[in-house]
Amino acid sequence: MKRPSGRSADQMRQITLTRHYTKHAEGAVLVEFGDTKVICTVSVESGVPRFLRGSGQGWITAEYGMLPRATGERMQREASKGKQGGRTLEIQRLIGRSLRAAVDLHSLGENTLHIDCDVIQADGGTRTASITGACVALVDALRVMKQRGAIKKIPEIQMIAAVSVGIYQGEPVLDLDYLEDSAAETDLNVVMTDKGGFIEVQGTAEGVPFSPEELNAMLALARKGVDELFALQQAALQD
Amino acid sequence: MKRPSGRSADQMRQITLTRHYTKHAEGAVLVEFGDTKVICTVSVESGVPRFLRGSGQGWITAEYGMLPRATGERMQREASKGKQGGRTLEIQRLIGRSLRAAVDLHSLGENTLHIDCDVIQADGGTRTASITGACVALVDALRVMKQRGAIKKIPEIQMIAAVSVGIYQGEPVLDLDYLEDSAAETDLNVVMTDKGGFIEVQGTAEGVPFSPEELNAMLALARKGVDELFALQQAALQD
Amino acid sequence: MKRPSGRSADQMRQITLTRHYTKHAEGAVLVEFGDTKVICTVSVESGVPRFLRGSGQGWITAEYGMLPRATGERMQREASKGKQGGRTLEIQRLIGRSLRAAVDLHSLGENTLHIDCDVIQADGGTRTASITGACVALVDALRVMKQRGAIKKIPEIQMIAAVSVGIYQGEPVLDLDYLEDSAAETDLNVVMTDKGGFIEVQGTAEGVPFSPEELNAMLALARKGVDELFALQQAALQD
Amino acid sequence: MKRPSGRSADQMRQITLTRHYTKHAEGAVLVEFGDTKVICTVSVESGVPRFLRGSGQGWITAEYGMLPRATGERMQREASKGKQGGRTLEIQRLIGRSLRAAVDLHSLGENTLHIDCDVIQADGGTRTASITGACVALVDALRVMKQRGAIKKIPEIQMIAAVSVGIYQGEPVLDLDYLEDSAAETDLNVVMTDKGGFIEVQGTAEGVPFSPEELNAMLALARKGVDELFALQQAALQD
Amino acid sequence: MKRPSGRSADQMRQITLTRHYTKHAEGAVLVEFGDTKVICTVSVESGVPRFLRGSGQGWITAEYGMLPRATGERMQREASKGKQGGRTLEIQRLIGRSLRAAVDLHSLGENTLHIDCDVIQADGGTRTASITGACVALVDALRVMKQRGAIKKIPEIQMIAAVSVGIYQGEPVLDLDYLEDSAAETDLNVVMTDKGGFIEVQGTAEGVPFSPEELNAMLALARKGVDELFALQQAALQD
Amino acid sequence: MKRPSGRSADQMRQITLTRHYTKHAEGAVLVEFGDTKVICTVSVESGVPRFLRGSGQGWITAEYGMLPRATGERMQREASKGKQGGRTLEIQRLIGRSLRAAVDLHSLGENTLHIDCDVIQADGGTRTASITGACVALVDALRVMKQRGAIKKIPEIQMIAAVSVGIYQGEPVLDLDYLEDSAAETDLNVVMTDKGGFIEVQGTAEGVPFSPEELNAMLALARKGVDELFALQQAALQD
Repeated sequence: MKRPSGRSADQMRQITLTRHYTKHAEGAVLVEFGDTKVICTVSVESGVPRFLRGSGQGWITAEYGMLPRATGERMQREASKGKQGGRTLEIQRLIGRSLRAAVDLHSLGENTLHIDCDVIQADGGTRTASITGACVALVDALRVMKQRGAIKKIPEIQMIAAVSVGIYQGEPVLDLDYLEDSAAETDLNVVMTDKGGFIEVQGTAEGVPFSPEELNAMLALARKGVDELFALQQAALQD
Repeated sequence: MKRPSGRSADQMRQITLTRHYTKHAEGAVLVEFGDTKVICTVSVESGVPRFLRGSGQGWITAEYGMLPRATGERMQREASKGKQGGRTLEIQRLIGRSLRAAVDLHSLGENTLHIDCDVIQADGGTRTASITGACVALVDALRVMKQRGAIKKIPEIQMIAAVSVGIYQGEPVLDLDYLEDSAAETDLNVVMTDKGGFIEVQGTAEGVPFSPEELNAMLALARKGVDELFALQQAALQD
Repeated sequence: MKRPSGRSADQMRQITLTRHYTKHAEGAVLVEFGDTKVICTVSVESGVPRFLRGSGQGWITAEYGMLPRATGERMQREASKGKQGGRTLEIQRLIGRSLRAAVDLHSLGENTLHIDCDVIQADGGTRTASITGACVALVDALRVMKQRGAIKKIPEIQMIAAVSVGIYQGEPVLDLDYLEDSAAETDLNVVMTDKGGFIEVQGTAEGVPFSPEELNAMLALARKGVDELFALQQAALQD
Repeated sequence: MKRPSGRSADQMRQITLTRHYTKHAEGAVLVEFGDTKVICTVSVESGVPRFLRGSGQGWITAEYGMLPRATGERMQREASKGKQGGRTLEIQRLIGRSLRAAVDLHSLGENTLHIDCDVIQADGGTRTASITGACVALVDALRVMKQRGAIKKIPEIQMIAAVSVGIYQGEPVLDLDYLEDSAAETDLNVVMTDKGGFIEVQGTAEGVPFSPEELNAMLALARKGVDELFALQQAALQD
Repeated sequence: MKRPSGRSADQMRQITLTRHYTKHAEGAVLVEFGDTKVICTVSVESGVPRFLRGSGQGWITAEYGMLPRATGERMQREASKGKQGGRTLEIQRLIGRSLRAAVDLHSLGENTLHIDCDVIQADGGTRTASITGACVALVDALRVMKQRGAIKKIPEIQMIAAVSVGIYQGEPVLDLDYLEDSAAETDLNVVMTDKGGFIEVQGTAEGVPFSPEELNAMLALARKGVDELFALQQAALQD
Repeated sequence: MKRPSGRSADQMRQITLTRHYTKHAEGAVLVEFGDTKVICTVSVESGVPRFLRGSGQGWITAEYGMLPRATGERMQREASKGKQGGRTLEIQRLIGRSLRAAVDLHSLGENTLHIDCDVIQADGGTRTASITGACVALVDALRVMKQRGAIKKIPEIQMIAAVSVGIYQGEPVLDLDYLEDSAAETDLNVVMTDKGGFIEVQGTAEGVPFSPEELNAMLALARKGVDELFALQQAALQD
């Protein structure tokens, strides 16, 4: 088996995390997984949705979008279509759930953190890159909240990172790019905490079903990948 | 640990599959997982979506809905809100992907099979009940297609069934009802083929992350559950 | 003249009213007019729409839907189309107006009763079946409100029932099924109270106009039909 | 009983029909029922909706709207709300059905006639005024079609007119204005042909049910009203 | 150069301003620029949008629409399409901005003035006619507000008028009708105050760019045109 | 007068044009006017809208968007609101019209060029930056079309650039940033060709009307600004 990208089966793409990428947002990170590039911003807003008012608890919510020509073929702009597609909604629900696991919502006070992940160039793995980048932006936003006095102290943060794995030509491979993803028999997205627990596991067979053994092999690869991501997040946050 | 339902950890609810539940559809099954009741119909339409025209291949697509008062609190009707929510889209995408794995789409000719899963009463596990019931309705629809001459022979069918498992008070349990699901630390939906392969695995931690060991224990339970479902599907189809 | 259904001109279809059909709603009736089957639920919600706040008066509102394959040909799901069609809106406005005549809204306190009529199988007369079934569900819901203390006593209820009549091959006939309705020259829906007054009369000529004499003959038939329905409602409510 | 308008019970308002009211449409009539003013245009378009293609048959369809300040209180513009309300859809379906009864659709060739009824000032009875005015505009449009060679001869036309009647303070009255309509116990819209047949009868009790005797008294008044309207239509068309 | 309309280059069309054109609105003007006819109403509503609450300041907002057959070809009704087009939004934003310049919003108290401009017949220049007519309707509405005690005195009003100019066959011309507008190389809409200041200048080259000299020549023509309009507004308001 | 930015009245911000900013689009330019940053892509699609089919002519169309946190306060995502706002539609119509002036549409064959301008950081002047950047991306796209054989030769291009000017504290100033724009009395957007002709002039008084002299002074400043932009475009295209 030879991956189209020429990488070894357990090799991640080049990952970069650029903080303060834009100037207005409380957290703003450009995350790159190879040619996949996503701007992740975190916006702090005082107040919470109706179902939490008076609870003393905060909220984290996420939205996801792609520029129309982030992809090989131009896709119709969702704003002009007048609705977000099922794929978009599914991804932004995943991002929101994942990041809500990063921090105890009670520690936020009645504030809402809006995560926006906008893909400016897509080459596979946009949802896992989004989660990985958004977690760094979240930390920056919490630091700004502390500076502004919106929270008294920065709450304990459980770092979250995500990676895709798959079965490509019968073998488990790590961090699929678009070409590999299109040809993979199975695609598995794994979201983990820096303590090694799973937050989310989503695997889909394309064509051939996958076996429990393949699942476990993929999960092991994912573990290796997110460990590298956690190291990169820490490095970025210490700059 | 004692389940609210009083069942043992590896015990499914009472499952029933009622074929020919309504009269117009080519396949029409009422599936009940305990108090969860879903009408699954399969409608055959000649022709395929634009991206398949001329390919000689068929298509299977799914839609999902809930009656407004299928739930404890009335939910707003999606038709009057003017859009389907993210949860709805996510579930119907899952149902469609799962059922497309049941049959080689080339064996359908240029016909579209519309699966509609409408929940008339909800008590947890509506998506897994939908998949399990829809697969029986699909077989009925293929038989009708054969009778009408739309296909020359009934294609080989890989039966598909699905069940939810979870971690409840620290222990893996099978086939969560609503009360159990609301209190579970982890919720995992598993879609399998009757040969034991995975079609889809979707696990979400609510609060506490889950470990690889817990994941494997849940998958083993799921395997037990779907095996029971496959037996019930076969029995129903032989009536 | 021979009706496709083989019934005599003034003969209703087999009617059944099944109470407590689903478990969550305060009122939940499955109504069957022959092969037409509608689930009618009534959901009680504390509070009223803005225009009634502070008035001490309650509100009754209705929504109507059909499962996509309730009909011979699959219809597109309104939730996925993003809007309710004109026929749907017209029918749900009719159901709401009719049921608001059943009870003095001042006797409800500031509570809203949501009626949902969902057709699971259609064979003509879905709107009249909906009204007839919803009135029974309404009584059940009022009983639950009394039990829960939301109202002090069950208000006086004017029972409401509805039936369609038509001119088929030149003769007035009662309770048209789909085949008869499609071929009828005139279609008249009549909503009455159990004291014999009209709540709503809606007649439409399809092709040939109808005469005052035909109108009166149809109204007489309708009267016979609703009287049978009132008896069935009473019987159902005494179980 | 004294009507707010000071009219006798069987007296219509001042009716005017102004042909060629705007210059672009094939038929363009301003109809006035007292202070109710509606612009009715008929636009001829070659071609028919998909379900009629190749049938050799034409189609007549209608849309209805109100200027936001046609009424005492400004209503939100439906175009900016993003959807037409239930009342609008109900009325335009009624107008379309009524006018399709005016002419054999096979005599139109594969052409579509779009009726647009736009209320510029409302004072009760907008739907009946719309139907009455649109029928005159339809005749003008057929004459233009003949001139342009779109049809070989002007088809036989069954004139259609409509009026509202009601029970006001216990007495049947003809052609209700807004004040009367708001206070009426029953409101009945009647659409008739110039040969005395009914095209549509729609009666609604507001509060108190109405009796068969009241219905017949209202229908007799309606007959008197539409006869006057037919005379005015003829006069207008002979100018 | 000869204009299709036969007018001289600096000649306006016949302009009429008919006040009190409909009876419900506080201001209601029919404005005609030749065959272009627009109903402009101003509706007074107590209260302001959220962003102004408590400011003591009022608000003026505008909406614009066309009847479907105001034009040579029937256009689809925006209410049935479910959204207002870009041209509509652009025009109504222009009308709103222009009229907000007519009066100090602080002098209105917390009241909102809704301007509705509905084109019943279009022949070029609908937006400039709308602004010119709406300003007269605005004065009428302010007078009504004074009478009703909603404001203590009529605030100082800066009259606003608008006209289109263009380059037609190389020459600047005033007040283009539809035929001229379609063939013009440049189209410039100018909104001015009665003191000669510009409120809005919007020029678009269709094909050939325009020069600074052409721009100045067009602006001079526009000045002549609006001066005539100001005189007509004054005359209308003194009736 | 001292500008908040500290620039002299006729001084542009730092402008950069980065070609090939993303990899998929035929043209992809990041344009920066100071802190305003816009990604402009041009996507080539074979085929034209219906109204041009068979004409042999091509089409250029534009869409505009902002990331939710491109601004100081997070704005709601238009895709999740379900419609594009009036400001967005107005800007994208302006961009489309402006760029269609750059090239003879007949020289494109039946191809459509989709321009997408997405603001990733906003600080005033996003529409003028978009037009200026999109023109460079357009040239790149034409070169790619030539390479792929979609066109035989690169058509003659009239370069287009745009800048905003305004009256700030009574003085004309060039290229307003957000702080200046918010406080300016007048805002004028000017789109020009490299031969000095106007494509579009849009001036709006905020509060105080502007005089013809002020207009001319602003136009002169704009001319200076676009000349600098044309030089930068040329330099970028020669890299």
